[in-house]
Amino acid sequence: MNFFAAPVARLIEEFEKLPGIGSKTAQRLAYHMLNIPKDAALSFADAIREAREKVHTCSVCQDLTEHETCRICQNPKRDRNTICVVESPKDVIAMERTREYTGVYHVLHGALSPMDGIGPGDIRIKELVTRLGTTDVTEVILATNSTVEGEATAMYLARLLKPFQVKITRIAHGIPMGGDLEYTDEVTLAKALEGRREL
Amino acid sequence: MNFFAAPVARLIEEFEKLPGIGSKTAQRLAYHMLNIPKDAALSFADAIREAREKVHTCSVCQDLTEHETCRICQNPKRDRNTICVVESPKDVIAMERTREYTGVYHVLHGALSPMDGIGPGDIRIKELVTRLGTTDVTEVILATNSTVEGEATAMYLARLLKPFQVKITRIAHGIPMGGDLEYTDEVTLAKALEGRREL
Repeated sequence: MNFFAAPVARLIEEFEKLPGIGSKTAQRLAYHMLNIPKDAALSFADAIREAREKVHTCSVCQDLTEHETCRICQNPKRDRNTICVVESPKDVIAMERTREYTGVYHVLHGALSPMDGIGPGDIRIKELVTRLGTTDVTEVILATNSTVEGEATAMYLARLLKPFQVKITRIAHGIPMGGDLEYTDEVTLAKALEGRREL
Repeated sequence: MNFFAAPVARLIEEFEKLPGIGSKTAQRLAYHMLNIPKDAALSFADAIREAREKVHTCSVCQDLTEHETCRICQNPKRDRNTICVVESPKDVIAMERTREYTGVYHVLHGALSPMDGIGPGDIRIKELVTRLGTTDVTEVILATNSTVEGEATAMYLARLLKPFQVKITRIAHGIPMGGDLEYTDEVTLAKALEGRREL
């Protein structure tokens, strides 16, 4: 038996579908929506609708944008000869935060994962290949995550892009800044050692 | 500088307004909304809109409902002579879960709190008084929270409702079931002692 009024129950259910939101939190959020001014609640609803209706992927780099091409691809100051390949739009944000990277991006929207049945055809690899074929690119930086899937994707792309005669690099793995050797897991430490540089 | 596409930024902002949702979680939830099927996202938006448009307070007990009166007030099996006064609709749900209470409710939608400038006129007390004047009620159970505000509200109502010659009771305070005396705070323990019953 459901104690809630139907629309309240439905709202709670919808909140429960969100990742990391349990039933108690879903209830709290649903009641919050009923407590705040109506305008505020409707503006929240509109924000979701607007995002889903206006946002699509950039025709060049596949990042999310409300325009034909994203603001990075539009920016004349960005170096179009360097493409940084990432798994998700979140990763573009993370890279941009460094304020160090001046090239452009390519968002794969996923990583290869045979376990989950995600193959090369399921992520935006075709678009990357087309891009390399049409624009002259000097370097492709593979910045997929250092998870099993991310590494596999990087290895796959490295092999796939060989024919294009472009410099293919992989972001470095090692001890995080401020990290203690003592507390670094052996895999990371091995990577750090393997990637050592002459000073 | 904002790295997000405008509609995405707006959606993140909206999620950040939710209680207990930090900026990182807001970002995760916003991107989740962009990843799930469009229908699912729009149905979430509709659920908010629907809840705000259909849900209002019951004309009798002030609980939330999509109808003229809530399903508890409509239920002929409920004893209309007993009114349980609670602070919020959440409390009605909590009481209903016990499956012990067969009377009806009155939701105040808040508690007296001079500190926050919430006086008798700001919560649904007037409606309770009208109700006692028009329907014959034998008992009013004051089930406001045992916070300073809840206690103050209970005391205020007890005094206010005296003239109606109805039995006015307050839910018991004491050691929670399964609770250890050792770990019970002294205020609760004092309440438990004060409220002791003969066996």
